[in-house]
Amino acid sequence: MSNDQLQTLQTKTPEEGFELAVKLSQHGVEVTQTSEEIRQMLRPVYARNADSLIAVSQVIAIHFQTIAAANNYWTVRTPQYWRRPPQYWY
Amino acid sequence: MSNDQLQTLQTKTPEEGFELAVKLSQHGVEVTQTSEEIRQMLRPVYARNADSLIAVSQVIAIHFQTIAAANNYWTVRTPQYWRRPPQYWY
Amino acid sequence: MSNDQLQTLQTKTPEEGFELAVKLSQHGVEVTQTSEEIRQMLRPVYARNADSLIAVSQVIAIHFQTIAAANNYWTVRTPQYWRRPPQYWY
Amino acid sequence: MSNDQLQTLQTKTPEEGFELAVKLSQHGVEVTQTSEEIRQMLRPVYARNADSLIAVSQVIAIHFQTIAAANNYWTVRTPQYWRRPPQYWY
Amino acid sequence: MSNDQLQTLQTKTPEEGFELAVKLSQHGVEVTQTSEEIRQMLRPVYARNADSLIAVSQVIAIHFQTIAAANNYWTVRTPQYWRRPPQYWY
Amino acid sequence: MSNDQLQTLQTKTPEEGFELAVKLSQHGVEVTQTSEEIRQMLRPVYARNADSLIAVSQVIAIHFQTIAAANNYWTVRTPQYWRRPPQYWY
Repeated sequence: MSNDQLQTLQTKTPEEGFELAVKLSQHGVEVTQTSEEIRQMLRPVYARNADSLIAVSQVIAIHFQTIAAANNYWTVRTPQYWRRPPQYWY
Repeated sequence: MSNDQLQTLQTKTPEEGFELAVKLSQHGVEVTQTSEEIRQMLRPVYARNADSLIAVSQVIAIHFQTIAAANNYWTVRTPQYWRRPPQYWY
Repeated sequence: MSNDQLQTLQTKTPEEGFELAVKLSQHGVEVTQTSEEIRQMLRPVYARNADSLIAVSQVIAIHFQTIAAANNYWTVRTPQYWRRPPQYWY
Repeated sequence: MSNDQLQTLQTKTPEEGFELAVKLSQHGVEVTQTSEEIRQMLRPVYARNADSLIAVSQVIAIHFQTIAAANNYWTVRTPQYWRRPPQYWY
Repeated sequence: MSNDQLQTLQTKTPEEGFELAVKLSQHGVEVTQTSEEIRQMLRPVYARNADSLIAVSQVIAIHFQTIAAANNYWTVRTPQYWRRPPQYWY
Repeated sequence: MSNDQLQTLQTKTPEEGFELAVKLSQHGVEVTQTSEEIRQMLRPVYARNADSLIAVSQVIAIHFQTIAAANNYWTVRTPQYWRRPPQYWY
């Protein structure tokens, strides 16, 4: 993972947020198995194992939760009371 | 997953939110095993394995958490104090 | 799952919320293995496997988190400052 | 689980909250394997399997998250600004 | 776990919060396998199994989430608008 | 883990927050298997097992959720109503 991507969890769209979640999931593997060579050896095995793929998908889902929250779910939430005209307040 | 669906996490109903959760779960597999062919080969195996199905259901559940939060649980929450008549405030 | 149940995550009691969590967990399996026949075949196997049952219980727990949050934990929370008599504010 | 316990997620102490989490975890198993007889048969097996016990502990942990949040972590949080003397506000 | 520790989730530091998370994880095992003798028998096995250790670490992580939230992440958060000088408000 | 790092969950960047998540994950293993010698023996095994690496990545992801929340996702959130010019309020 290039460092510049982990300077922020903010992304423009959910799509980009999902991509970042994928990268964070991979990063979690990289920090434990730092050898690129060994990781490349393992890849064809787990990429053909359904349970491994589902497990990877779960790690991505957990990171996506974090990133979605960090981006306020990519939506501006106007609080209820704000939509009321100001005269209601006084 | 078509890109237009990941432009937003907003859905009209919990039903649609659940469908989106299913798609995100599948998307997490697709980004790891990009070959449609291999994924199709794996499908009949894990789709007949109870533990794999439960694991898939768990990934869906995690994504559904995210999507439900993004949609404020598909409910408008009027804050407590708002329901009070305005004269209570002044 | 009947559609009318997934129109809302609101339930009257935690008991009903738990039942909805069970249904969402099952729904997550149904969308992956759409054949009712195959699911019925798998059932006697995983229902007698402790680890499968624990895994199912975990998926239910995750959905119950979502549903409990959607129902504000089935409790009305009066904010601290609201309980103070109004003269404290002015 | 007796119905009266699932009428609320509120407990007096974290200790009681943990007990409720244990019950919800068991409830998740009960709804899937409704036969008390079979569950009793499975018990001695998984209760002597470290990985099963860890998995049970995880389900309890997830439910405990929900119950702790429902009880506002068994603590009254006075908002920061409230502690300030009133004259600071005017 | 001594009862006095589960009377509150509040801890002075993250370090102590982590220790409490460890205890809650163990407590989840204890309530399922109440025999101290059997737990001691299982210990040398799972403590030498990497996957079991990782699973234990995961349960601790889930409890640590709860405890960290209960302690407001061991930080006082002054709301943004509070830092503004009072004249900005009137 | 040196004690000074667990005195706070605050980090300057997401990158540092991720590093702390890695350490907390390892810490969860260390408290269960306190022997450095045995841990070193286990390492080459799980570091070459894809499923173990994915499981480690998941524990990191859970801790990263906690740390990200503790750091308010490394972003200052100005509330919506604050951006409005003051005259809108009076």
